[in-house]
Order: sequence, then structure tokens, then C-alpha cells
Amino acid sequence: MDYVYGPGRNHLFVPGPVNIPEPVIRAMNRNNEDYRSPAVPALTKTLLEDVKKIFKTTTATPFLIPTTGTGAWESALTNTLSPGDRIVSFLIGQFSLLWIDQQQRLGFNVDVVESEWGQGANLDILASKLAADTAHTIKAVCIVHNETATGVTNNLAKVRRILDDYSHPALFLVDGVSSICALDFRMDEWGVDVALTGSQKALSLPTGMGIVCAGPKALEATKTAKSVRVFFDWNDYLKFYKLGTYWPYTPSIQLLYGLRTALDLIFEEGLDNVIARHSRLGKATRLAVEAWGLKNCTQKEEWFSDTVTAVVVPPYIDSSEIVRRGWKRYNLSLGLGLNKVAGKVFRIGHLGNLNELQLLGCLAGVEMILKDVGYPVKLGSGVAAACAYLQNNTPLIPSRI
Amino acid sequence: MDYVYGPGRNHLFVPGPVNIPEPVIRAMNRNNEDYRSPAVPALTKTLLEDVKKIFKTTTATPFLIPTTGTGAWESALTNTLSPGDRIVSFLIGQFSLLWIDQQQRLGFNVDVVESEWGQGANLDILASKLAADTAHTIKAVCIVHNETATGVTNNLAKVRRILDDYSHPALFLVDGVSSICALDFRMDEWGVDVALTGSQKALSLPTGMGIVCAGPKALEATKTAKSVRVFFDWNDYLKFYKLGTYWPYTPSIQLLYGLRTALDLIFEEGLDNVIARHSRLGKATRLAVEAWGLKNCTQKEEWFSDTVTAVVVPPYIDSSEIVRRGWKRYNLSLGLGLNKVAGKVFRIGHLGNLNELQLLGCLAGVEMILKDVGYPVKLGSGVAAACAYLQNNTPLIPSRI
Amino acid sequence: MDYVYGPGRNHLFVPGPVNIPEPVIRAMNRNNEDYRSPAVPALTKTLLEDVKKIFKTTTATPFLIPTTGTGAWESALTNTLSPGDRIVSFLIGQFSLLWIDQQQRLGFNVDVVESEWGQGANLDILASKLAADTAHTIKAVCIVHNETATGVTNNLAKVRRILDDYSHPALFLVDGVSSICALDFRMDEWGVDVALTGSQKALSLPTGMGIVCAGPKALEATKTAKSVRVFFDWNDYLKFYKLGTYWPYTPSIQLLYGLRTALDLIFEEGLDNVIARHSRLGKATRLAVEAWGLKNCTQKEEWFSDTVTAVVVPPYIDSSEIVRRGWKRYNLSLGLGLNKVAGKVFRIGHLGNLNELQLLGCLAGVEMILKDVGYPVKLGSGVAAACAYLQNNTPLIPSRI
Amino acid sequence: MDYVYGPGRNHLFVPGPVNIPEPVIRAMNRNNEDYRSPAVPALTKTLLEDVKKIFKTTTATPFLIPTTGTGAWESALTNTLSPGDRIVSFLIGQFSLLWIDQQQRLGFNVDVVESEWGQGANLDILASKLAADTAHTIKAVCIVHNETATGVTNNLAKVRRILDDYSHPALFLVDGVSSICALDFRMDEWGVDVALTGSQKALSLPTGMGIVCAGPKALEATKTAKSVRVFFDWNDYLKFYKLGTYWPYTPSIQLLYGLRTALDLIFEEGLDNVIARHSRLGKATRLAVEAWGLKNCTQKEEWFSDTVTAVVVPPYIDSSEIVRRGWKRYNLSLGLGLNKVAGKVFRIGHLGNLNELQLLGCLAGVEMILKDVGYPVKLGSGVAAACAYLQNNTPLIPSRI
Repeated sequence: MDYVYGPGRNHLFVPGPVNIPEPVIRAMNRNNEDYRSPAVPALTKTLLEDVKKIFKTTTATPFLIPTTGTGAWESALTNTLSPGDRIVSFLIGQFSLLWIDQQQRLGFNVDVVESEWGQGANLDILASKLAADTAHTIKAVCIVHNETATGVTNNLAKVRRILDDYSHPALFLVDGVSSICALDFRMDEWGVDVALTGSQKALSLPTGMGIVCAGPKALEATKTAKSVRVFFDWNDYLKFYKLGTYWPYTPSIQLLYGLRTALDLIFEEGLDNVIARHSRLGKATRLAVEAWGLKNCTQKEEWFSDTVTAVVVPPYIDSSEIVRRGWKRYNLSLGLGLNKVAGKVFRIGHLGNLNELQLLGCLAGVEMILKDVGYPVKLGSGVAAACAYLQNNTPLIPSRI
Repeated sequence: MDYVYGPGRNHLFVPGPVNIPEPVIRAMNRNNEDYRSPAVPALTKTLLEDVKKIFKTTTATPFLIPTTGTGAWESALTNTLSPGDRIVSFLIGQFSLLWIDQQQRLGFNVDVVESEWGQGANLDILASKLAADTAHTIKAVCIVHNETATGVTNNLAKVRRILDDYSHPALFLVDGVSSICALDFRMDEWGVDVALTGSQKALSLPTGMGIVCAGPKALEATKTAKSVRVFFDWNDYLKFYKLGTYWPYTPSIQLLYGLRTALDLIFEEGLDNVIARHSRLGKATRLAVEAWGLKNCTQKEEWFSDTVTAVVVPPYIDSSEIVRRGWKRYNLSLGLGLNKVAGKVFRIGHLGNLNELQLLGCLAGVEMILKDVGYPVKLGSGVAAACAYLQNNTPLIPSRI
Repeated sequence: MDYVYGPGRNHLFVPGPVNIPEPVIRAMNRNNEDYRSPAVPALTKTLLEDVKKIFKTTTATPFLIPTTGTGAWESALTNTLSPGDRIVSFLIGQFSLLWIDQQQRLGFNVDVVESEWGQGANLDILASKLAADTAHTIKAVCIVHNETATGVTNNLAKVRRILDDYSHPALFLVDGVSSICALDFRMDEWGVDVALTGSQKALSLPTGMGIVCAGPKALEATKTAKSVRVFFDWNDYLKFYKLGTYWPYTPSIQLLYGLRTALDLIFEEGLDNVIARHSRLGKATRLAVEAWGLKNCTQKEEWFSDTVTAVVVPPYIDSSEIVRRGWKRYNLSLGLGLNKVAGKVFRIGHLGNLNELQLLGCLAGVEMILKDVGYPVKLGSGVAAACAYLQNNTPLIPSRI
Repeated sequence: MDYVYGPGRNHLFVPGPVNIPEPVIRAMNRNNEDYRSPAVPALTKTLLEDVKKIFKTTTATPFLIPTTGTGAWESALTNTLSPGDRIVSFLIGQFSLLWIDQQQRLGFNVDVVESEWGQGANLDILASKLAADTAHTIKAVCIVHNETATGVTNNLAKVRRILDDYSHPALFLVDGVSSICALDFRMDEWGVDVALTGSQKALSLPTGMGIVCAGPKALEATKTAKSVRVFFDWNDYLKFYKLGTYWPYTPSIQLLYGLRTALDLIFEEGLDNVIARHSRLGKATRLAVEAWGLKNCTQKEEWFSDTVTAVVVPPYIDSSEIVRRGWKRYNLSLGLGLNKVAGKVFRIGHLGNLNELQLLGCLAGVEMILKDVGYPVKLGSGVAAACAYLQNNTPLIPSRI
């Protein structure tokens, strides 16, 4: 029973879960193992060491939690904060909305800074709030690096600068779900206290592993954080780290081997090359959108995301119909518009293990769908724009030179 | 890089994670998919319907949570109870201990009923506590069906009887991690309010899915339960069940397809045949232990477990050395003794997708190891005892008659 | 060690081996089995029955030989002919050339009918030869249905007509390696005596199985055919067919299960839909080539192949450089020009398990490569032409309506 | 559709095809690739270099032919001999019989030296034939190193000695199908001119690759050998070896990667350790047979095979019933008795990627089956005998020390 089967490959362009590279699929194609044998801790040790590299941190402590991004969020909050704590959080799209909802339900006092969907976090308001907060009642600043619903990338370096400007001690918590390992992210340089991602995003693994890095200040905060936590408690992990057995409960053997291979592939390509590739594919997508005469949901270039592009459709078209036709006619999986932008945007995910020709196939598909639904696109126009850019910017595959 | 490799198969006899059947490994050998396409909800719908069958319930609501058994525990508690609630919980081994630890850290008032490790839950004490509790201050009775550390199976039907005897309204919460789908378990008949298991146990999948069934009384209890919860909140699932999209956050596509195949295999063999097979393998193991002149950690036959046997070694032997040699010399993975019984017992897991000859290979291996570590076993004795029983009781494979 | 790895998928557009569908990869992901158990013959029986459907024959006997197309050729010849036998064979490209070389080395008296590369078989010469051969010295007419080197499809119905016109009893032997299961092929209707293909072509399996169908007249011919043969002897198979064990020597278990799934997928899509899909993709490719201002190596429309297009490059470009750059820069695998057309053509294979968007990604890639090597292509032009056609002709995926 | 499925693993103890190690299954779990890209020749080059090591040759040229053992036989004969050539061949069981049948059908003048099934090749007769053949009419001596039907290993070193004693120039052709990479085999030291094996035997791959090594004298012989050959012609390979593209026709990409991993695993374990492991498992099996009171089909210890044991059953038992029950009741695949020994022997294959506990599970199964069919075996007796030996002789797994 294969629910998804049609002739040829499924073209997976949702912004997660993303395409898994063949070597990773292979690595995960295995029986279970005893996680208390000497082999699994030995493997885990390499993973914990290497996963820090994709966060660009040498000082933080990583946790590989059997959960999703939502669980990773929860671990970041409950390990560092206490109910009633005041936190500043930016609402700029569906995923920041969901995180704020979680923050509120976990009992924090959330100071929501809202922007229009399609804009980045309003950092001027952050500055004024921090300026006013001489009593340091703000315990944490929570921000989604890349809002997957609108394709908006926030400026984290600037958040750090503002915190520093006011010498504010608030923790800096970052959702890097659709950014880490695809966009420029520098945990140590930007003084991020907790950063997290999910296995099914830029790491190009199946869903099921929340990857959280906690800096020294965040670990210190766990000592006073009164939020109730057991499954997500970092201290349970730390206890087993000391023992060298690493796991407070059973990990997914398959995901461990998968992560090993995923990291190997990333390091083989070079993390900076991976990020540059995302930049190229993002740019090519935006050029195609422009050529189609459509608008990016993201309102300013400074916020353009290199991992997902939300495309605004004309009012006479239902963007959900675009996604539906992609699925039914071309075996193309695009992202729906969510919540406020439902029906108004569709999304092209261009993150993870992807290359130029895969993207161009997707763009050609979008052109045909646009025509299908009555938008007067000039067929080939977006592909041409993307090709013109890519043909000048795509490097040779290093291992094949 | 294959940390676990040696010539031939690894003989996996820890009581979880267990051997994955080849058809399930195949089913999971796939790329990611868009979980918002029509295919994934269609698949999920069949899973939610069919997973109830292995709990023997028609009235409960299942949740397939991307977590481990520990997370499934947490969801059972936080969705139905409020901090400060009095609960009765039985401490009979390492896993009941860990659950009680969780219960305490989640802020419940835990009335611990302790037994010697190797004994079952003391249900007489339960009876007296319920008798005394005319005010119904006990909000829940929490019990581990099968204590994986000692190989003790508790009598759930009797728990139900006692609750009924006193017409006590306490919720009946069951950890079925190493029992459901392997031992006789009847959620509806026994009036269990919440039952849970993990994918890597009798279902023979990789780790990563906590499977929880909540009966009507448990769902009712969620309305007043004040425990803080977001990731584990059943209501977030129920909202998406109503929409027919099923997932509040991203599921593991691979585990969904894996579960589909796992259930298909179980139904093809017949759930009762699966349970009978576990009974046969459990009995054969105990006969071997007896033939070796060793003692079962479980003190009475009524508690003998058909999914795991903890074998007591003589005081002059360190049971950890047995596990170590199994790994190093025979590619055999046995379970360590944990906590109070560390060094004193080793464990043979005989659950999940397993057959007679696999077990006999393991038993032969244990005999050689026992000799390796200086125990005067008669080689072949345990295998002979097991064979004598199995040769008379193993049915033909139905699909091959 | 993964020699072929680069970021993203490899875009495989050689005319074989072709892309394997995920369900087939899954089906082949398995341990060996005893081929003398009851299971393998039961499986084989279904394969022999079903494989006839893709040849459109009910009267022929199929052989699944552990070999390549070259071996399948050899089996067709040695089982039906004797050294010295006169045969007519058409030389129109590299693969017909290789078959003729084999025919000569096997000791037949080959009457070669040569055409310019890029033209189809000269059937007028066939007619005159048959007309002259009143003594019936011609024992067989050998023809490649689809010459993979030049993208030329021969008219088999016409070959049959000519044979019938002269009531000539020569055997009609067809190489259907790059046609069967992709192009219109009718073994019974066209009176083909032996037809053959290879697993790695339209069936979209790994290499390793030569699939040969022998009609009643061909089987009759085996009785007098004196060519030396053992490994390729059909009679060894027929002996085991009678016994119901089917295999004179060990088959590949993996390929058997793979073929089962491949056939299931083809029947699920519908053989006629599969052929129609190839026709669409072939037409789209040719429209792109035209838009680029390049010439099809195939000189007339009647010979255009729906499984492979050989594109002629201008004299100032080395077509091998196009293939090299596809590999090195875009992870695109195109077919080289072979022998007489080496350096002059490159080939786009569009056969097997493939869909529209995969092809469009390839075409976009070719456009960039053409620009890379200095050909003044208008970027997007070929994709636009292909899209314009496909957008009007691609049906919904039946299973998703 | 899984024809072979039953609960737990299938216990595969036929003497081929044998169990594939998980890392090899993983390595083969992949899409097709263009075999004309730079990657496949680079991979092939390492394979051709490394495969010679398992033949213990530095001077021979290897061919990886897409065929089975039967095809490998054919290539050995047709490349080196001419029709009518006199060859000496030993008939000692079903596989030597089949090879002789092939030799005769290929037109050679076969001087058959027959022994009772269960005995080795009669080398005294060879000596007398060579002594008499002062005219050197004998062009080749053909011998099966290990007769898989009876479990007889011939003494190749002695064959060489006899050839040398008479300074006879006959080619020395060896079928090493069930020996190479499992038994002591030394191509160069023993002056073997052609040796061959199949991928599905000790190399533990799927069926589909015939591996043939031809020494300098054999390559020289190709120049005068008049046997008709095309598909099996080594010269077609040699032509492509020179070009560095290696393949005269399409290889199985999956088998190439599989072979790479298989060789890596063998070298990691150490070829001598692999051979020692086969020796241990063979010895343990024979000790079990003895303990059961049954006879080895092989009549003398000097011929005992370390890769397969044919066990003679009492006259009142049909050995086929033993194989049938193994399959139907215990998911155990044993080898049937073939031809002259059909019904009289069953065979336990103990070759390929296998370890002690797998074998012991099989032996326990055989004991139960023997009891099932009415043989008065003492349950546990064979396992005890095997364990007693193995417990004293099994080394630690080197990578785990």
C-alpha cells in the first residue's frame, strides 16, 4: 500500500519534511540495536561533538531529543524559565504564533510584539522595551529565526546588538527550525543562549529528533527554572552524559545512524557551501516569482528567506487550488498558505538536500499550474530567469572536478 | 561506519528495542512526504482505527505521539491529573521506579506501594487503601503491566476487580510498554482508562512513537486536569482529528508506514497467535533457566513474564560480565541488570518479531557464556529443555500449510 | 563510499539504466531466500504469467534469464538458428551494429541492410530480398525496434506486412530493449517470433534480467537449431517449467521481487497509460529541441522515438563536453554520442519511471549546459515549449482524482 | 506480497544463496546510475583489484560477469578450449555432473572420472591418465573444489602436484563456487589457470555476478580457443579494460556497490579469519551430526567440507520431509538431497556471512525436526556437542575487544 505513488518521483517542495539524501536513507535501513551496548554511546559521542558545528558553537551543550520542533521549543522554555516569567516574543507568522501559544500555555507572561505577516520582527520595539526594562523583568527574548509561514528571516545579529546596547541579561532563545544548517547562523558569535532545530528540516532526515543547543548561561538558568519538566529535562541527559551512556531513555537507532551520515554529507560538501547553495536556490526562486509577475509575501529584501518563499497569488485565485493541482496533476508537493494567509499564498520550500535541476523542475511545474488555474503566466519565464542566474553562479560539484 | 558490525547477524535479545521484521524495514525505506497531502491523513485514519485492536478497545481514543515511552507516560499523567492529586503507584522494579520519579516531579502526591524486586504489585495494600479512601482522594491508580527490569507481570484484571469492589472512581492508568501486543491485555474488559506502549517494543518498530489510548473517562478528565502540557496535550490532537488532518505537528512519515506494515503483519499472524507465540517463547526460556539450575528473578509463577526473563546469577558471578561477553564474543545482546539488581541478574528479552530458532540460538549462546564466566552449566541442557517443550507446542506457520 | 554523491538527487537521463521507482527499491531491499522453497516458484509463476502482458502476447513463452540485453540477444539467436543460417539484419546505429557483430561471431551468414545513422531500417530492401528469396534461404529477420543510439523507432507492423506479402517463413526476431513496456509493441498481432528486453530499461529495475518471449514458431525452431548453447538454452528452462520449480540455476531473489512490484506498478498505472506517458515525454523533449534550434538526429518524424532523443550539436561543439558538464556541474546524467555520432550528438533518455517535472528539470539543465559550452540558446525556450505542450496534455494522476 | 514471511527471521541454511550482511543490503539499496559516468569505472577499478585478493592471485585477470555460476563455468570453458578438445573431469555429485553435462554439450571430449557420491575426486586415476598422455592430448583438467551436493572438498594442491609430476601442460580449471572466500584457496600457489565463483555464495551477495579469474596461461589459450562465444567472451572485457571504461555491456550498479561493501567487510574481518570461521562452523556442524548418531554423506575426513554438510538419514525417513518441515514449522531453510541422494540426505549450508549462534539455532531446529519425523534423537545432544567445541574455539570479535 503506497498512498503517495504516481509515475516518477514525488517532487517534494514543502518547507519540511524535506528530501532525504539516498545515503541517509541507506544508513537508516537497519534493524534495531541495543542502545546500552558500547557501540551506541560511541556513535552518540561523535554526534554530540559534530552537531555543534552546524550551530557554530563550541561552548554550548547539545541535546538530541526524541521529539519534534514543538517539543524542542518546549524544552528550550521549560528548562530555562519559571511560570510567570516575562518574555518578549515576536508574532510574524503561523509558527511564531504557535510558539507564543505554547509560551502562554506554559504559564509565561508573554509580551507579544506583533508585525504584519510578511514583515520581520519589529526590533525597534524590542529596543524600546529593553530600554524601559531597567529592572530586568524581561527574562528572555524569543525569536523565530526564519518564519516558515511567510518566508521571513529575522536579523539575529541585530537582536544581539540591541541586547548588548542595553546590557540586558535576558536569555536569547532562537527557533532555528527552518534556518540552522541552511542559513547563516552563528550561535556563539551572536550570543544565542538556546537554539534548536528539527531533524526533518535542513538536516534532511525523517522527523523525530529535536536538536537543541544550550549555552552556558542557559544551563545556569536551569538551576533556578521552576517550570515543570521531566521528559524534556536537560538534567536527565546531563546525568547520562557524565556516565558516558548518554541516553535517559531509548533513542531511535535509525535516526542516530541517519544523523551521522547527514553530518558527514554536510561536512563533505562544506557547511559554508551548503549555506551558499541555499542562497543560490533562494535567489533563483525569487527571480522566477518576479518573472511571473507575482509578489513575494515577504515585504522587504532584508527579510527574504533562502529556505522558503511564500508567493502571493492574485485575489481571484485560491492558492490552495494551486497546491491541490500540484499534487493531483504533477506529483508536486507545495506548501499551503496557513492561517492569515490561507488561500492567499502558496509556498515553495527550497531547503535541505536539493539541487538546481530539482528546483527548476518545480518552477516549471508551478508555471503550468499557474496557467491551469487561470493566471496569465508566460510559460518558461520563471525558469528562464532562474536559469540565467544559476547558469552564472552554479559551481562545479567539488568531488567531481 | 558501522559500529555494530561483526560476522553474521547481531542476536538482539534485550527487551527493547527489539528486532524489526524485514517487511517493516522495507516499508520504512523511503523519502519524506508532505504530511499535509491527502495521502498521509488517509493512512493515519487506518492506523488510528487499527491500533485500537491491539489494545482490545473500541471505546478509547488513540494518540500516536512522536516520543518515547517516557513521553507517553507523561502524556497519560498530565492530561488526566492536576498537581497535588493523590495517586497510588506500585514500585516493583526500575521502570516503575522511573515512572514514580516522573509522577513526583510532575507534582503529584504519590502513594508508593513498594514490593521486593522480583515480586508483583501488592494488591492487598491497594485494596486496603481504596477501602480507607471513602472520600475518594485517590485520583488514579498507576501500574506497570510488565516490569521490564525484573520480568514481573502484574494482574490487571485483579486491579480492576478491587477498584470495582470498592466502587472507587480512581482512574486506572497502565504502562503497557513491554506488554501490549505481546501479553494478554484487554483495555475495555478491564476498564483501563489510559494505556500506553512504545513503538520499539512488541510492535517491533524503531523507537520514536508513543502509542497512547485514552478511554472516555480519561478524556473527560482532561477537562479538569490542570497539569501544564502543550507538546503532550491530547486536545491539540483532538482538534486536528476533527479537521481530518490529524497532526498538530509533523509526524515521522517513515514510522507511519512502518506501523501500517507492523499492524498488517500482526493481523496476518493473528493477535491471539502473536500472544500465544510469546507465551511459548517465555515458557521455553524459563524451562532453559531451570535446566541451567538458575533462578528466575520473579519469585512466583503467577508473575512470570512472557516478554522478558530476568535470570539470577550466583553471587560469585557479575551478571554484567555475562552481557559483556555476549556482546564481545557471540554478537549476542542481552539485557543488563538495572539498579538494585545490577550485577545480580541478566535479562533475556523474548518479545516482538521473534521465532523459536532465534530464541534457541540465544539460549545456546547463554550456555556458552555461562561456561565462559565459570558457571558449571551442562552445555545443551537449557536448549534441550526448551526444545522438548517447543517441539511439542510449535504450530505450523499458518501461511505455509 | 559513495562515488556518485553530490547535493540533491542525481538526474538520470541516460537511456538506461533508468530510474527505479521507490516501491521497487523497497521491494528489493531484502535478504536472500532459498529458491527451492515453495515461495519462489509461486512468485515466479505469477511473473511468467504477467510478463507476457507487457509483450502483448498470450501465446509466447517467457524466459527470465540472469543476464543483460546482450545475453538476451544471444539466447534469441542460438535457440532458433544454426551456424551458417542466412539472416537479414538492419544496421542503423550502435546497438544494431553490436547485435550484427554478435550474429557474425555466432557464425550466421548475416545479410546486413545498412542505413545512414539517423534513419530507420530500409524495409524496401527487405521486401526485395524476400521477394528474391523464393528458396527461403533467409531463416530470420532481425531488427532493433528502437535504436537507442540514434533515437530511431522502426516500424515493426510493416516488417510483418512485408513478410506476409511474400508469405515468407523467416523468423521475426526483435530487440525490444529500449521499447517494450514504453512504446507500442504487439508481439502476437505483429507475429513476432522472439522479442526481448532488459530489466534496466522501461521496466525500471536494476540490470541483470534478460526477458525473452518466444512464440510457438520459435520454440519449434529450437528443435532443429544447432547453435551451441547451454547457459542460454531455453530447453533447460522448459524442463524446470514442467516440474513447477522453474529455475535451472539460481535466480536473483531480489530481481524477482523487484519485477513483481514493477509489474504491479505498471498495471496499476495501466500499460496503455504508461505508453501514453512516454509519448507525451518524447513529444515534449522534441519540442524543446526544436525551440533550442537544434536538430534531432532522427531524420524523419515517422522514426521519432518516444524513449530517447539524440540531439545533434553544431560542429563547433563537442557533444561529449555537454555530457561531461552535465555530470560535473548539474548532477545530470545524459547519454553520450556513440561510435559514428560520438562528439556529434548527446542523448536524452526519457524512458522508464519518469514524470513531467523530472523531464523539465533535465531540459532546464540542458539549456544551461548549452549556454555553458557556447551555444546561443535562449534560456527557458525549450522548457517553455515543453510546458506549453504538457500543460495541455498531462492528465491528472488517476489514483489522486 | 511477501511470499516468505512468517514471524521472526527466516533461518537460511541452504548452501546458497546465503545470508546477505545488513551493510551489503544497505549498500545495494539505491537507484540506478549511468555506468558511463566517471564514478562507475572508478568503483570498478577498485573491485577488480580487490577481488583478486580473495582468489589469492596477483597474476590473474578478473572478470565480473552478469551471470550465474553456470554462466561462469561456460565462460571458463569457451574462452580457453576448442570443440573436440579432450578434458578430464571428475563426477562426484550433482554440481560436477551438471558441469560435465555442460562440457559435453559445448562439444568437448570429456574423459569422466567418476567416484561414488560422498567420495572426493579420484586423483589416482588422474595420475594414470596424465602418465599415459605423453602426447598431451588432455587440454584441461576440470574440477569442482567443493561439491555442494555431497559436502566433499577436493584436494587442489594435490591436483597441482600430479600435473607437475608429469609436467603436463593441461589447463587447470576450478569451480570454486562454494569454496572461494570460505575455504583455503590459493590460485597462484596451486597454479590454477581459471577459477570462478558466484556472488551468492561465500561473498554473501544476491545472485547475478559470476566472478572469474583467468591466469596468464588461460589468457594465452583464448587466442587459439575456437569455442563460439560472444556474451561470455573475455576479450570484449579486455578491450574495455584498456579503455578504462571496463564494461562491454551494462553491469548491475547495485551489485557493484554490494561487492564493494562485501569485500570491505571481508578484509575488515580478515580473509584468514573468514576461512577460520568457516572451519569452526563446519567442525561444529559435524560434531552435532555425530552426536545425533547420523552419518556424514562425505566418507572420509580428508574430504569434509567446511561450507556444507550433507547428512544421511536412516532409510525409514525421507530427507525431503525434513526440509519441508523445517520450512513449514520452524522457518528454517535446509538444502534438499539432489539426484542420486534425493530423499537420502539433507544439507546444512554453513557458508557466507554467518556466526555461531545462527548455526546453533539451526542445529536446535534440526533436532526438533528429526524428532518430528520419528528419528530418536536426544534433544540438545547436537547443540551440546557443537557448543562444547565452539565455547573453546570462538575468538572475541576483534572490533569489540
